[in-house]
Parts: sequence; C-alpha cells; structure tokens
Amino acid sequence: MENLSNYTFDEITVGQTAEYRKQITERDIVLFAEVSGDVNPLHLDAEFAAGTDFGERIAHGMLTGALISAALALALPGPGTVYLGQSLRFRRPVKIGDEITVQLEVVEKREDKGFVTLECRALNQDDKAVVTGTAEVMAPREKLSLPRPTLPTVTVDG
Amino acid sequence: MENLSNYTFDEITVGQTAEYRKQITERDIVLFAEVSGDVNPLHLDAEFAAGTDFGERIAHGMLTGALISAALALALPGPGTVYLGQSLRFRRPVKIGDEITVQLEVVEKREDKGFVTLECRALNQDDKAVVTGTAEVMAPREKLSLPRPTLPTVTVDG
Repeated sequence: MENLSNYTFDEITVGQTAEYRKQITERDIVLFAEVSGDVNPLHLDAEFAAGTDFGERIAHGMLTGALISAALALALPGPGTVYLGQSLRFRRPVKIGDEITVQLEVVEKREDKGFVTLECRALNQDDKAVVTGTAEVMAPREKLSLPRPTLPTVTVDG
Repeated sequence: MENLSNYTFDEITVGQTAEYRKQITERDIVLFAEVSGDVNPLHLDAEFAAGTDFGERIAHGMLTGALISAALALALPGPGTVYLGQSLRFRRPVKIGDEITVQLEVVEKREDKGFVTLECRALNQDDKAVVTGTAEVMAPREKLSLPRPTLPTVTVDG
C-alpha cells in the first residue's frame, strides 16, 4: 500500500488543491455514534427519522467534519500537520449511501509562523455542498513518507 | 435507561449551561481512525508519536469536536436540534486516558429564526481548555422525550 506523504510549508502554494472521497454507510453512522456517544434517533432510528423534516436517517454533521480533518491530515498538507482551527457550516443533510468528496484549496500562507489557511468544501454525489468551512493549520517543515498504519479489525454486530 | 429529552427554543435562556463528559481511550482513537479514514501515525503508532513534539500518541482533534457535537445533540438543546455551524480552536493535545468535559453555555437567542448560539469549551482533567469554539443551532420547537436507541455491539480486535 502506498505510503503516507506530505507537502511541506515550502512546497505548498496558494491555489493548490486536494481531494478526499468517502462513501457514508450505515456502519459509519453506528461507529460515529459509538465514538462520540451521540445516539440521537435521527441518526439511528429509521422510523423516528421518517417522521422528521429529513424524512430518513441522516449522518451526524460532524462526521463530515471528520472527513475534512482526515483530508487535511492525509492529503494536504498531510502527516506532520498541526491542526489549529476549523469553521464548519452544515448546509445539507448527508444520507446513507451518499458519496462525499472533500475539496481543499490553499488560500493563504503566513511565512512567519508557517500557518496555512485552506477553504474546505464537502460535496455530495450531486455536486451539492453539504459542509463548507475554513481550516487553519501549521504546515510541516519536514518532508515525511511513512508506512500507512494498519488498523485493528473493527466489527459491528447487527 | 433514562430517555433522551430536549430543551425547546422557548425553554432555553441566555446563560443556561450543560455538560457532557467522556474519557478518551485508545479504542476511541481506533474507531475515529476507522470512521474518518485518518490513519495518521501520530494517532496510531506509539513509536512514531514518541519522536514528535507531542511525545506520545494523541487523539484526533476532531474527535473532541465530535464530543462537542454530541453535547449539543444530547444535552443542550438535545434531540430535534438542527446543527447550523461550528467553529473550533484546537488548543492542547488530548492524550489517551484524558477525561474530557464539554461545557456549553447559551450566549444568544434569535427569536425570529429560532437560532441559538452557544459557547463551547472542552476541558481536560486538569481543567485546561483543549478545544474551544462557538456553535450555532436551530433549537427544537417541540418538546421531545425519546427512548435512547441501543447501538449494535462494536468490537475492536487487537
């Protein structure tokens, strides 16, 4: 499997972009509920969700936030990035089966501190923005290429 | 187990507070890596993390963001809340075993739209702020008391 690699502060240019994709599954919603503790029935109970304005179960908004943070950590700048801040606007619901594409674009570099600002957009398969926001990170100074850690097997029963 | 209940827009007052607590375990970090895809070795590889400025494995910053979103969804306002926006500043690392307390405080209500703004602070067991920010939500209009959904069993192997 390919290594994890990064872009150093010096390599990063304003206008540089990266993408990160993930399909949201029912399993993801269960795992996010497990790790956050947010067992809201809007996410977990199909019958309850059918009676809401959303009409069906939706993913936790912050699950898409987690995909944005993963895009920063894995793609741009990648490993060695220090996460300083993030703003998020939750614009549309994410439903089970949606294909989410996170798009990152570098909009500012601050040479003095090594800070980089990125515009973040998470789009669904219809190219509609589901979450947008801005990230501020301290970009890595050192070039890294690291083996991708293997996760333990995670099983969801039922 | 107690039901999930909420505070409606009319019940919410400026200055109202709520708390939500969770200890961060190694298992949580694995689950967050699984659901987000962020397999950065800073979170997963003790040997790699020991060589960084952090000195040991740390939790994903957005995992604490997920706890803030859970506090809004479960405690204040609770079920029926629509999440509109969130800002986050990542101030200190969260390490395995840290006891995180999310504190929410209502700072503004907008009668016309039903919007509520809350200041959010996640503190560690030493009362140091690890993540701070501001949430904007649309508070529920309808009083709800719902059975707490039971999650499928999630197992991490290894």
